[in-house]
Amino acid sequence: MSNPFFKNHGPYKISKIIKSLNLNIDNSYNEKKVHDIKDLVSSTKNDITFLHSKKYKDIAKKTKASFCLTTNALKTELPESCIALVVENVLVSTSTITSMFYPDSINDNFDETVLSIDDTHFKDKVSFGKNVLIGSNVSIGSNCKIGHNTIIEKNVVIGDNCLIGSNNIIRNTLIKNYVRILDNCTIGKHGFGFFPIKNKNFRYPHIGIVLIEDNCEIGCGATIDRGSMSNTIIGKNTYLDNQIHIAHNVKIGENSIIAGQVGIAGSSIIGNNVKIGGQAGISGHLKIGNNVEIGGGSGVIRDIPENTKVMGYPAKNIREFLRDNK
Amino acid sequence: MSNPFFKNHGPYKISKIIKSLNLNIDNSYNEKKVHDIKDLVSSTKNDITFLHSKKYKDIAKKTKASFCLTTNALKTELPESCIALVVENVLVSTSTITSMFYPDSINDNFDETVLSIDDTHFKDKVSFGKNVLIGSNVSIGSNCKIGHNTIIEKNVVIGDNCLIGSNNIIRNTLIKNYVRILDNCTIGKHGFGFFPIKNKNFRYPHIGIVLIEDNCEIGCGATIDRGSMSNTIIGKNTYLDNQIHIAHNVKIGENSIIAGQVGIAGSSIIGNNVKIGGQAGISGHLKIGNNVEIGGGSGVIRDIPENTKVMGYPAKNIREFLRDNK
Amino acid sequence: MSNPFFKNHGPYKISKIIKSLNLNIDNSYNEKKVHDIKDLVSSTKNDITFLHSKKYKDIAKKTKASFCLTTNALKTELPESCIALVVENVLVSTSTITSMFYPDSINDNFDETVLSIDDTHFKDKVSFGKNVLIGSNVSIGSNCKIGHNTIIEKNVVIGDNCLIGSNNIIRNTLIKNYVRILDNCTIGKHGFGFFPIKNKNFRYPHIGIVLIEDNCEIGCGATIDRGSMSNTIIGKNTYLDNQIHIAHNVKIGENSIIAGQVGIAGSSIIGNNVKIGGQAGISGHLKIGNNVEIGGGSGVIRDIPENTKVMGYPAKNIREFLRDNK
Repeated sequence: MSNPFFKNHGPYKISKIIKSLNLNIDNSYNEKKVHDIKDLVSSTKNDITFLHSKKYKDIAKKTKASFCLTTNALKTELPESCIALVVENVLVSTSTITSMFYPDSINDNFDETVLSIDDTHFKDKVSFGKNVLIGSNVSIGSNCKIGHNTIIEKNVVIGDNCLIGSNNIIRNTLIKNYVRILDNCTIGKHGFGFFPIKNKNFRYPHIGIVLIEDNCEIGCGATIDRGSMSNTIIGKNTYLDNQIHIAHNVKIGENSIIAGQVGIAGSSIIGNNVKIGGQAGISGHLKIGNNVEIGGGSGVIRDIPENTKVMGYPAKNIREFLRDNK
Repeated sequence: MSNPFFKNHGPYKISKIIKSLNLNIDNSYNEKKVHDIKDLVSSTKNDITFLHSKKYKDIAKKTKASFCLTTNALKTELPESCIALVVENVLVSTSTITSMFYPDSINDNFDETVLSIDDTHFKDKVSFGKNVLIGSNVSIGSNCKIGHNTIIEKNVVIGDNCLIGSNNIIRNTLIKNYVRILDNCTIGKHGFGFFPIKNKNFRYPHIGIVLIEDNCEIGCGATIDRGSMSNTIIGKNTYLDNQIHIAHNVKIGENSIIAGQVGIAGSSIIGNNVKIGGQAGISGHLKIGNNVEIGGGSGVIRDIPENTKVMGYPAKNIREFLRDNK
Repeated sequence: MSNPFFKNHGPYKISKIIKSLNLNIDNSYNEKKVHDIKDLVSSTKNDITFLHSKKYKDIAKKTKASFCLTTNALKTELPESCIALVVENVLVSTSTITSMFYPDSINDNFDETVLSIDDTHFKDKVSFGKNVLIGSNVSIGSNCKIGHNTIIEKNVVIGDNCLIGSNNIIRNTLIKNYVRILDNCTIGKHGFGFFPIKNKNFRYPHIGIVLIEDNCEIGCGATIDRGSMSNTIIGKNTYLDNQIHIAHNVKIGENSIIAGQVGIAGSSIIGNNVKIGGQAGISGHLKIGNNVEIGGGSGVIRDIPENTKVMGYPAKNIREFLRDNK
């Protein structure tokens, strides 16, 4: 799938990519064109990918990418069809190249393309409040409502029968049908991802989007960041209460219920039919199975297998928690 | 007291109620009219009420309601004057009938009735900022200020000498005198209450309001949800710091002080002179006595008797907490 | 340094100050003029200061203030050059006198001085969105952007190359260069500081500001309160994620990284290169050293020495935490 919102400014000759990384590589494929940058799994021929950790060596072996940014130690994990470009810091180099392909994904300034909805063709199609603004590259289905002062910034697709409240800011987001977004939410901004280098923070590009599936409800004051190299996803019929923070690349399954003030850190994956109590926090890069119940106030710092009830900080089996805390 | 904000569309014949629940009851009181739906205590003659848990059997015995939605097991707890309507799921049936009486309590879409305050009679009475919107059925006392971009949606009563900041959204709320609401608050939306049924969430109506008593201060970014069958109440001279979440049906007493990022889950009752430290969370349906002090970061999962200091997760006596954590 | 934003309405004769505190002091210095009220360290000759706790007796001995509000027990800690004014409640008296010198620091109502940016000289200098409002006493450097619906209230200085997003409210704040403020933030309001006296809360004045140094990023939904007698400071190149609450007088060092939903209570001092995980909370009046790492969800209730990793509630050494929670 090509990126729905960020324009790919490639292809680029590999020589240009090598040069932009300040690499000293003498080679015979200088004229070869690279079409896109993707992760190990999604890459196809003529793409460039990246491998920065042993953890991914098994999927690295199967990548179809033609080039891969990696380290000297990891380069042997790649298939013969994939040429390793050895760099000092894989993630920083990946950011540099991603920014080259998708320069628009860096800039998260306020959207200068917006118009008052009264000056767009949506004025006859959508039921809307006062002071609603609409950016470029927006589509809105039938029977939708958009509340006062809400800003639908560029790169937003809204399906049918959606109810968007007031004071929201939405960009780089795909909203399916029958979704309800209450008030004061900020959805689709870049995540809190950057490399601290010599007293500067070098922010990496976020080319992912936020995807909100059918029938979801997003409570007041939510912040849902878009993904960096993949998407942030809220599954069908999942309901979020007020003041929830969903970081970049998080994926939440279907029919889940998440109570107020919960925070889910970057890249964690939450299953279907999961219930999370108020103020619980989930660390980054974790996997929470289907049908898990997490008690209010819990701090989850390890994966949770499916069909489990946990509570505590750190979260443990709820029976254990209650026994230890009689 | 009749509902101050939601119009009662009744009375309805009991036969119509029975039909809307798909019940097969042959009876002799089909023509009897039902005037309102209320809880066991508030109901009077000709009202319908509901009983879904043994917990309430003592108050059930004294209800003055003429009809009661309940289960086969619980119907014997009702007085002779009250006719039991046995249903499969009491709370779902209660929602259905409540929606029949109060159809306007279901819809929490943005308020389409609002006008710019410049186009209302408030323009000569209230000191107001730019882009202030006022809905229908709003009254505002003397000597009030309303800040920029604030939306006073329908069904709001504001007393005298109140200071409302900027970017707030308020509906279904009764604000007494000398109340200060800072910025970015969302007050009076429905709570996070619904029944998950077959991959859909069936939201129950919220016919309660938010009641904010004299001299309260509500900090920036608060979300205060209105009640479902009762009201959400903030008692006299209670102060809330920034980023606080108060769920539906919560009742907070007088002279309480609640620090930043606290969350109080649905239906909990907090006493007078209670101090709650930052980021503490209180589970739903709890009772916190007068003069209780709850340390910052605590997770309260049980009732707390009055005059107690607690801390920890789960919260326990503070001396015990400090001894266990030297 | 004189106060950058709040006008000093002094000097006042000491007799007027004594009278406003209802003190019965017969003295020979009635005509003496007091120029300002400051803390023990910052005070110079002809200022009034305050001493309310033994904790500060060492610095009290060196104060250059001519007068000091204090208690009978503490008055002997002052140097001969400083005349003690013995009062019942030092902090309440300090508030009273501060309000006398800085009456504008009490009022945090919405800013009635704002104009649409289109009606100011900034319209040719700043890149701005729809519905931007600018208060009095604002300066903005070159190459700045200000997003939709943002309100720059009175007393704000913004440096060069700053990116301010949408829906923000900022007042009493000094922003240096290359600062990014995302969306929905409320910055520079007074803190949650007051004295509960007989069922009323007597709010003390906040004459401090918020100071945001070069290269900082402030995430969506932040609340950063200005200081009471000192400033709230975010050091160079410090990044804050979404939904963070920073209370009054907090000082954060350089190059620190603070994840989502963290809360820092009043007057705590955070060092340089500190990393704080999501949802962690830090109690008031603590000192967190340089290079400290605080795990997500932690509750910090004691000072943390530099170069330490902590986690837990209460936070302890991370090795200990992980060992105790295997």
